[in-house]
Amino acid sequence: MGFLREGLVLFILLCSFEKSFGSRKTRHLKWDVEYVFWSPDCKENVVMGINGQFPGPTIRAKAGDTISVLLTNKLHTEGVVIHWHGIRQVGTPWADGTASISQCAINPGETFDYRFIFDKPGTYFYHGHFGMQRSAGLYGSLIVDVADGETEPFHYDAEFNMLLSDWWHQSVRHQEVGLSSKPFRWIGEPQGHKMVVVEADGNYVQPFQVEDIDIYSGESYSVLIRTNQEASKNYWISIGVRGRRPQTPQALTLLNYAPTSASKIPFSPPPITPTWNDYDHSKSFSNKILALMGSPKPPRNHDRRIILLNTQNLIDGFTKWSINNISLHLPSTPYLGSIKYSLKTAFDNKSPPENFASDYDVMKPPVNPNTTTGNGVYMLPLNTTVDVILQNANMLQANVSEIHPWHLHGHDFWVLGYGEGKFTKEDEKKFNLKNPPLRNTAVIFPFGWTALRFVTDNPGVWAFHCHIEPHLHMGMGVVFAEGVQHVNGIPNQALACGLTGSRFMKTTQN
Amino acid sequence: MGFLREGLVLFILLCSFEKSFGSRKTRHLKWDVEYVFWSPDCKENVVMGINGQFPGPTIRAKAGDTISVLLTNKLHTEGVVIHWHGIRQVGTPWADGTASISQCAINPGETFDYRFIFDKPGTYFYHGHFGMQRSAGLYGSLIVDVADGETEPFHYDAEFNMLLSDWWHQSVRHQEVGLSSKPFRWIGEPQGHKMVVVEADGNYVQPFQVEDIDIYSGESYSVLIRTNQEASKNYWISIGVRGRRPQTPQALTLLNYAPTSASKIPFSPPPITPTWNDYDHSKSFSNKILALMGSPKPPRNHDRRIILLNTQNLIDGFTKWSINNISLHLPSTPYLGSIKYSLKTAFDNKSPPENFASDYDVMKPPVNPNTTTGNGVYMLPLNTTVDVILQNANMLQANVSEIHPWHLHGHDFWVLGYGEGKFTKEDEKKFNLKNPPLRNTAVIFPFGWTALRFVTDNPGVWAFHCHIEPHLHMGMGVVFAEGVQHVNGIPNQALACGLTGSRFMKTTQN
Repeated sequence: MGFLREGLVLFILLCSFEKSFGSRKTRHLKWDVEYVFWSPDCKENVVMGINGQFPGPTIRAKAGDTISVLLTNKLHTEGVVIHWHGIRQVGTPWADGTASISQCAINPGETFDYRFIFDKPGTYFYHGHFGMQRSAGLYGSLIVDVADGETEPFHYDAEFNMLLSDWWHQSVRHQEVGLSSKPFRWIGEPQGHKMVVVEADGNYVQPFQVEDIDIYSGESYSVLIRTNQEASKNYWISIGVRGRRPQTPQALTLLNYAPTSASKIPFSPPPITPTWNDYDHSKSFSNKILALMGSPKPPRNHDRRIILLNTQNLIDGFTKWSINNISLHLPSTPYLGSIKYSLKTAFDNKSPPENFASDYDVMKPPVNPNTTTGNGVYMLPLNTTVDVILQNANMLQANVSEIHPWHLHGHDFWVLGYGEGKFTKEDEKKFNLKNPPLRNTAVIFPFGWTALRFVTDNPGVWAFHCHIEPHLHMGMGVVFAEGVQHVNGIPNQALACGLTGSRFMKTTQN
Repeated sequence: MGFLREGLVLFILLCSFEKSFGSRKTRHLKWDVEYVFWSPDCKENVVMGINGQFPGPTIRAKAGDTISVLLTNKLHTEGVVIHWHGIRQVGTPWADGTASISQCAINPGETFDYRFIFDKPGTYFYHGHFGMQRSAGLYGSLIVDVADGETEPFHYDAEFNMLLSDWWHQSVRHQEVGLSSKPFRWIGEPQGHKMVVVEADGNYVQPFQVEDIDIYSGESYSVLIRTNQEASKNYWISIGVRGRRPQTPQALTLLNYAPTSASKIPFSPPPITPTWNDYDHSKSFSNKILALMGSPKPPRNHDRRIILLNTQNLIDGFTKWSINNISLHLPSTPYLGSIKYSLKTAFDNKSPPENFASDYDVMKPPVNPNTTTGNGVYMLPLNTTVDVILQNANMLQANVSEIHPWHLHGHDFWVLGYGEGKFTKEDEKKFNLKNPPLRNTAVIFPFGWTALRFVTDNPGVWAFHCHIEPHLHMGMGVVFAEGVQHVNGIPNQALACGLTGSRFMKTTQN
């Protein structure tokens, strides 16, 4: 029913361009979120739009700018939040836009002021983070240019932005009820044109040239394209599904050299994307991504290591995803308020496990497929170095394991390495501590592991989860809380629900 | 796309039955609201269910009982409330279940305790009252028997309950966006069987015999049927649309005498319901409804008269419904809290008009079709007698006027009369002050008026609106506030949104 692609951003820069710089400032936006009719594939459907448009408006800003988005919820019965994917929200954890975690959802008719600083340049996006409102269409591009007086470590002449996302004919409510999920991988082959990858998730990388790229849900890249081909022709760009056998055809668009007519069809057929299960191709791409010289380096040692086993499980026969055998079910009181004010009944106070049974065989389906829900939190002291080992495993069905792109809020992390099978102490020796890339999203490959490192330098409560929205919906995530006692100034509106809503309400009558 | 019938209840009593009485008590229910798959017409769709069933569970209680419904919102992104249609909520106006009026919507994951007294026996129903959640399937039957030691003024042997509602294939979100509405009238002809109407909206009426009844959205009736026909046959019951040209066939069901097989099809064809626009038939039925002797009588005189002109209008080209040229748009802070605590910025403080221009021609389309939105309130002092004249008019299109069933919360009203054309001072002389029926819902006929009287004896804020859900959605309603300063004990949770949510939040930080 659906076609093409989760919320991803590919930012294409055409060489080489001299920037004009304005001055650092506060940008004020007024946005209304409401359903609109939209027919991207000639079949009319309802989609969540912003100011009457879908996808939402592109935000363009400079590093160091403050933004204020006055977001008015014009939905009739649904709350809403917006997550600013890739923005670390230093000092403003309540503006991270995660319902149940950083704030109460904005009620219908209410307006919330998302006010925060764009801490660094990059190609980002924003999207809903409540239920499956991202799948309902709530997203758009967010592009932060370098600050005044700074330059990028590459040059280009022009730029354009591709925001890739899935589109379904079935409503999100159908999807929620059915817990159905969609394949969500992307690959492009701009025929004859090479792409030079220069930025990933808002961090510069060592430039490397490819003919196609693997992009996963939650990721963003900037690539340079030299427009050195015959200008009288147009060129196919193919977009195909990765990681799960596709039931939809490749998507196609055209690279057009002005003033050539954009309706001129190329003579040659569109490029065929790599087969969906060519994981070696995918891994080869991931391993090419290395930090640009001069990028921040990771601490040499970690203070704590959390190993997270990703398994598909059952609860009362319903399919779920679990992390160390706990399927995340978010509480009605957002953690930021309940932890700050020590409301101990708001969530499970027991810390979730930091490892899994040593005899678990990641190459086989779970021996006991049953799991339980939970909403415990990993409490992390400030200014410690945390390693997370994401461990993939076989799903319920034998001989199947899928790719999952994990996204961390409030942070970038270093990707120290990828490996096959079960992570062992020996694997640590192969960690790349020299030039690991900083990312906010990283995949685990089938039956493999991925090692990440980050420093707990940002007081707040941060989600860490698989970015495939139905997988998060089915429990595939964890929550990190760090230094919440240092958070001050949470807006009342962000607390006006759940236990914080009822306990802190003081009227003359009560 | 859809078929059959708005939320209405027809309660059929089969003569004659000796009641067994229990004792007055508090009934405790635990309900979860969530979407479920349902296939009432063989096509699977999502519908809002309660405890996994659609329609929701039937509540059965006795007058004088207290009920506590612990309602947990298991929807993922939507708030929810439930209105107990026909229950006056004396002393518990926060339990009326009207979002933006009596309480904050219950957030996803939260539980609200609807605790109130069933003040009188009757055939009622309950339904969502937030956005178009009634159309989404949130409703069920609510039947209150007479109190212990009391008897009904009629006898019957057995009873069954028919809850009539519309069913659409299109989602509520599609409907909301499209502002589409559906015809919603009902009429039944239990062939060969006569029906004796004995109760309307929870008030006894003078029994009268009919072969079919007109039932409108928001209404409920009890009828007696004497099962005096040939028991070896089954009998068709036909249900047809009234008041708007139907695009769906009559719905059919069978009246079956046990132990005759229920699959035995009657020899004769099903009865044909009256034509959709046979308004004389409808008026004749309405005029037969008179209060049973001994029912409360209206005060002889009114203290205040509010005349409400019903017009179809435009705002920026969007079709709306307006009352005295104001299209109701509910505020994000529920009135009960904002009026109680004098939060003057929460809504328009200017009282809406109590009449319309004397030269307005109700027989013609509006000369100036444009209108504006508003959320002002009619402030009513306690213990006054208020007359409301509902004045129908021509719609935007010439020579068209439709039936609207108006429902009042927190009260029953006396229906003093129906008339044709524009209401004049002369019409007052024809008011029925002798035995007008008490109802909570009454219709206005095309191009006609309906006169209602009620006493402001119930402190609270009460919606008064057309019960066709899309019409309310498009602005067809007003709000009455009476003696709100006498309301005490509003639960904090009912205030935890909008201005009451943010102003009354006291945390250690703020």
